[in-house]
Order: sequence, then structure tokens, then C-alpha cells
Amino acid sequence: MARINDNFLKLKAGYLFPEIGRRVAAYAEANPDANLIRCGIGDVTEALPNVVREAMHKAVDELGCRDTFRGYGPEQGYDFLRNAIAENAFAGLDISANDIFVSDGSKCDTGNILDIFGPGNTIAITDPVYPVYVDTNVMIGNTGDADEAGRYEGLVYLPCTAENNFVPAIPEEKVDIVYLCYPNNPTGAAATREQLQAWVDYALKNDAIILYDAAYESFIQDPEVPKSIYEIEGAKQCALEFRSFSKNGGFTGVRCGYIVIPDTVFGTTESDEKISIKQLWSRRTSTKFNGASYPVQRGAEAIFSEAGKAEVAALVEHYMANAKLLREACTELGLKVFGGENAPYVWVACPEGLTSWDMFDKMLEEANVVITPGSGFGAAGEGYFRISAFNSRENVEEVCTRLKALL
Amino acid sequence: MARINDNFLKLKAGYLFPEIGRRVAAYAEANPDANLIRCGIGDVTEALPNVVREAMHKAVDELGCRDTFRGYGPEQGYDFLRNAIAENAFAGLDISANDIFVSDGSKCDTGNILDIFGPGNTIAITDPVYPVYVDTNVMIGNTGDADEAGRYEGLVYLPCTAENNFVPAIPEEKVDIVYLCYPNNPTGAAATREQLQAWVDYALKNDAIILYDAAYESFIQDPEVPKSIYEIEGAKQCALEFRSFSKNGGFTGVRCGYIVIPDTVFGTTESDEKISIKQLWSRRTSTKFNGASYPVQRGAEAIFSEAGKAEVAALVEHYMANAKLLREACTELGLKVFGGENAPYVWVACPEGLTSWDMFDKMLEEANVVITPGSGFGAAGEGYFRISAFNSRENVEEVCTRLKALL
Repeated sequence: MARINDNFLKLKAGYLFPEIGRRVAAYAEANPDANLIRCGIGDVTEALPNVVREAMHKAVDELGCRDTFRGYGPEQGYDFLRNAIAENAFAGLDISANDIFVSDGSKCDTGNILDIFGPGNTIAITDPVYPVYVDTNVMIGNTGDADEAGRYEGLVYLPCTAENNFVPAIPEEKVDIVYLCYPNNPTGAAATREQLQAWVDYALKNDAIILYDAAYESFIQDPEVPKSIYEIEGAKQCALEFRSFSKNGGFTGVRCGYIVIPDTVFGTTESDEKISIKQLWSRRTSTKFNGASYPVQRGAEAIFSEAGKAEVAALVEHYMANAKLLREACTELGLKVFGGENAPYVWVACPEGLTSWDMFDKMLEEANVVITPGSGFGAAGEGYFRISAFNSRENVEEVCTRLKALL
Repeated sequence: MARINDNFLKLKAGYLFPEIGRRVAAYAEANPDANLIRCGIGDVTEALPNVVREAMHKAVDELGCRDTFRGYGPEQGYDFLRNAIAENAFAGLDISANDIFVSDGSKCDTGNILDIFGPGNTIAITDPVYPVYVDTNVMIGNTGDADEAGRYEGLVYLPCTAENNFVPAIPEEKVDIVYLCYPNNPTGAAATREQLQAWVDYALKNDAIILYDAAYESFIQDPEVPKSIYEIEGAKQCALEFRSFSKNGGFTGVRCGYIVIPDTVFGTTESDEKISIKQLWSRRTSTKFNGASYPVQRGAEAIFSEAGKAEVAALVEHYMANAKLLREACTELGLKVFGGENAPYVWVACPEGLTSWDMFDKMLEEANVVITPGSGFGAAGEGYFRISAFNSRENVEEVCTRLKALL
């Protein structure tokens, strides 16, 4: 009989968001009149920008005429989009179109990137963390079993706490691959230039690779906070960067993201030969991917037009004003509040005596507000909850009102 | 230093189609006035159906209004599309929407499916074969090195030859996973009900899983030829089926496909526990994928409308009439011709004394026609070439003329 990948059996319960979905669905079914407000999944809520829709309409029309029809595109993305990304998102950072690999989204990219790495790497993740980093490492066999707290044997967990402002200390030990995500999901923390420089220095010293997830870079308000890891000296020798159009452009349902891989990042074979990471990812991409949808790539390109930038700025402003309201409401209630200043997530310590899932259930049942339990992001997230600022102003104001009534 | 996946180094040269692309680009650069006709990559050429474009336009507009905006969709696909697939593509075959996992295309699916299988499986592929099946097995470590003919140690190659009508004989040995693709890429062969029944019987007897790639089912003209593996008794206990909108609906640039996984297909753990393949793929999908683009899924749904079916039928008729012309031209030239009757590929034996790549170069340089060298699909493809019927009528007629002038 065909042997399955036993590593899948190590995975704890469900992926976090489907589990939330199940609890919410059960509650909604039992309470059909409840006016639920969803601040759980970090999913955008506002309309797709006009310029994106116009570009997508135009692209769909092009496909309707055999002279302008396009079939298979380049697996790594069309030059028009790769150029637009290099020129706009990385202006002045010496990143070329050739360093950019367009995909159908960062969730896929951060999972799929493991295909090109071998066994035997020591892998570090922050705790709390976006569950995809952990689960994909479990699935591919880079870990042992989980302990009772949900920590997998073999992973190096880097605690992110209020004490370190949710940016982990440089580890004492040597790791080979480290995932960093700033602005951070779930804590909303931003990493300073000095903190990122320390990580890059560590990576260079230890021949480690940083997998830098910058999906939320557009929400950075503080001009001192780096938007890309490539603003840090030495990063082009040790870091890949993941970016997405999901949160800035509202592409969570449209699907487009990309990875930046400079020529100067290398890994090693079993026999200590240095191999270009870009060369491996290029082979992986041409073999296992067929390019992102053409109309979607045209929509993504439009994000970089002047009109597109203005629309994205308005969306960011909207969501960040929401974040401010949520911060203020929680602060007024005497809760310890983090994040929400350079990220669309507000990270809040639960009222005393409540675990993360207690707080989730209390918010769901008593306030009809869906949040995300901090412990769903890792053991160090216990005692916290995440509120997403992705919502209408009206809903956010209502959440603030309900929070004040509840606590 | 981060260890790379050494299995990538076992891969021979480039993936076939990029290699063809490089040779064609080099020729075109050196001969800018050459009027090249591309019958190499199996890429559609005709306009995307009207109903698909209308549905995509409508979906894009929905995203422009916050009340109808949709962000993250279900990872396995929207119910509207899963239902349309189950009701139309598998009518009467007892396949439910719940068995269907929508994706961004079959290339991704046939590669990614290996994530859920463990090491230690004996894997059989036909020869010649779609290179993705082979390369993804190499990349994940299911093979040893390649020999000089390009055959990887550890894979079981099932020769498909003129003698067996390009449907492989049932192997004497026990294999755990077998890839079958009918109508076949590259040979254009169709498998009969009896042949498929023999394979299903073999799989049931040996607890093997059949990965059945039916990307070309819509081109089947002969009513006796099964369009789905699930027309075969017992297949629901042993087969997954891959389908795509690329070739019927012209989605090669739009990107949508799906896998069918009945509840009744199982694999086994190291400790001999039976595990549902659907359960594993569901976990893989929710962890590493975020759903296909919403406007794309609406476009795919439209394929199943009455108007959509009529447009697809017209496209199929167009391409199959091309295939007929190509078959006739090659036959007139005294070449041995296969396929092209239930598939958009014509598979032709090279004129005596010419290898597949000889013929490729000759066609490129002397006739300015791009074909695909049979040996690119595997050692048993040596001595053949593939002509794709995906083209305009005018181009196909011109190819026929040039072929006659050349040979």
C-alpha cells in the first residue's frame, strides 16, 4: 500500500484559522440572530482598488481576442510586474527584476520554500508565530513530535515577549534558517534597524539564511522602521524576502505575492559545495508552478501606478485609524496593549485569569466579536489575544463599544 | 550554512520547455525575420470564451464594492465551483463536491501531491511522460541518480511504444503509486475501458494508488473511451484524478485546475495504520495554499453553463480539426503517425536516421516550425516528435505546407 508522509500525523489538531472557523460556525448556527463582528482572520474587508479592477478588466478583455491572448506566462512572473516591483518596492536597494519570483501568495511561498532546503538544518522561529512556518516544517519532516505546550522537538523557539518588545534576542546557539516577520503577525511589533542589523550580522557570522516575511510593510508609519530587510547592510548575502499584495492591495481573494532572492544568497550541499538559492528556487518554480494568473499580475502591476499608490495609501490609512481606535479602547480598559502602530494587528494581554481561548470564547459568546487567541500562534502567545484592524470603521467602533461593555 | 536539498542536483539539465524556449529564442535572435510557428509547448492559442470573460468581469466588479467584496476564500475552492464540477464533469459517477479540491492548475497539483506521500514508495511512470511527474519525484528524493539515457534509479519505467499503442502493460512487479495520463501527453493515445480496468484491478490487488491525469479529457471524440477514471469499477478505491481548465477552457494563463479525491482512497503509515488520502490533502491544502483567485473560480464555473459548454465544444472542434490536418499531412509524407484522434497532440516517428533533437533542430532551422522532441519526454520517446494542434487554422495549414516542402 502507498506509504503516506507520517510527518503529517505529528501536526496538532487543525490549522488555527479553520479551527476558529469551526467554533464561529457552531456559535452562529446555535445563535442565528447574533450580530457577529469578525476580527479574527487577518483578512481585508474594503473594496479592491479601482486601478486594480480596471487593469484586471483590461487584461480579461485582452484574453478575449486571439491577437492579444496570452497562455502560459513565464513561471517566475511577467517582466512588466517584476520590473514594477523592483523599481517601486525596492527603489534604491539594488534589487533587480531578475531577483523577483511572482507567485499566487505568500502562504504558498513560505510553505513551498522548504522544498529547496535539505534535512539537517536547525530552524528557528519566533514564538508566537504565523502557524504556516511551523506546520510546513513539521510536514516536511524538519521536526520531531510536539510536546504538551505544542512545541515541536527540533525547532528552536525564540520567545517574543513584552520584555523584548516582541523582537527575539539573538540566539546563543547556531541556527541555519530563521524566520522573521516584521511588522509582525500576530503581535503587530515592528523591528528597528538596529534589531534587524543584529540579526543580519548573526546570519552572516553563522552562515544562516533569514526568511524575512514583510507582508505587512505598507502599514509601517514610523519613517525610522525599515520596510525591507535589504535596507540592512549585508542582508543581500543572507536574506530572502516575502512580500504580498494581500494586505496593501486587498488581494486576499485575488492572490498574488512574491519572493525576492538576490544572487548572493547561498546554501551548501552535503559535500559542502556552495549552491545559489536563486538557482534552486528557479528550478523549483519552473517545475512545480505555472505562473500567477495573467489578469491578476496586471492587477498587481497597477498597485504601483500613481493612482494605485494613492488608493493603497487610503486603505492603509483607513485600517491604521481602526487600529488606533482599538488600541485606545483596550488601553482605556486598563489592558496591556501592543502593536497596532506599524501594523494592522493589536496584541492585547488577556484580563487576569483568562487564557487565550477563554478570552476567545468570552468575546464570541458575550460580545459576539471574533478575535484570535494568542496561544493559537504558539506557547508564548498564551495570555494574549489578537484583534485585527481589517474592518469597516463602523464595525471597529462597535467592537470598541462592546469591549467596554464586556470588561 | 543552510543545507540545500541535494536531490535537486540529480535533475538533468533544464526542464524541457524552458530548454526549448532557449533554443527558439537563440534562433529567433539570430534570424529576426524568420516567421516561426510554435507547435511546441501545448499551449492554447484561441480567445478565452465569452462566458468566462463575462463571469470574470462580474467577479472583479463584485470585489469593487465592500458589500460584495470577498477576501480569503475556502482553501479547497468555493462551493459554487466544486458543485458545478461534481454535477457536470462527474455526472452519474457518484463524485461529490466534497471530493474536489480546486487549485491554480494541474502542474502544481501533480507536483504538490507528493507532499502527502512518504518515502519508500515504488513509483511507476510511463515512458515517455510529462516531465513534471519525474522531476518532482527527483526533487523530493524518491529516486537515485539518472543514467545516461536519463532514467532515474528507483523509478519503474513503463514503456509506451507503438507495439502497445502507448498504453503500458501491467507491470509484473508491485508498485505503490502509478501515474497514468489519458488522453496522453505527449503521445496523444487514449486508453480503452478494458485497459483502464486492468490498471484499476492491478491497483486494487496491489494496494497501489493511481494518479490519473485527465487534463485532456474534453478532446475525446470516441464515445467508447472513458473520460474519467471513475467510470471504471473500483477506481474510487484506488485513484485520484487531476483535471484542468487549461486546455478545454483556454485557462493556461488564467490558471485553474482541481484534484478529485474520493473518501475511499487510503494510504498507510509506517506502522500500517490506514489513513485517508483526502484527509491528508485537505490538511496540506489548508496549510500551504490559500485558494485559487476568486475571479478565476467564477470564470471556471462559467465553463459549465450551457453557453460555456457550447464555447468549449467549438474550441475542441477547432483544435481537433487542426489535429486531423496534421495527421493527414504526416501520413501523406509516409511518416508513422499516432495520436491526434482523441487528443490535441500528434505523435510522429522521425524520418529514418534522425533523433528527436535532430528533428527539432531541422524543423526549427529549415521549416521555422517549433515542435517538441520526443526524447524530452523520456528515453522511450527517442525517435519521435510531438506536434501540438493548439494553433490557428492558418498556422496549421502553413505547418502542413512546410512539412511537405521539408520532407
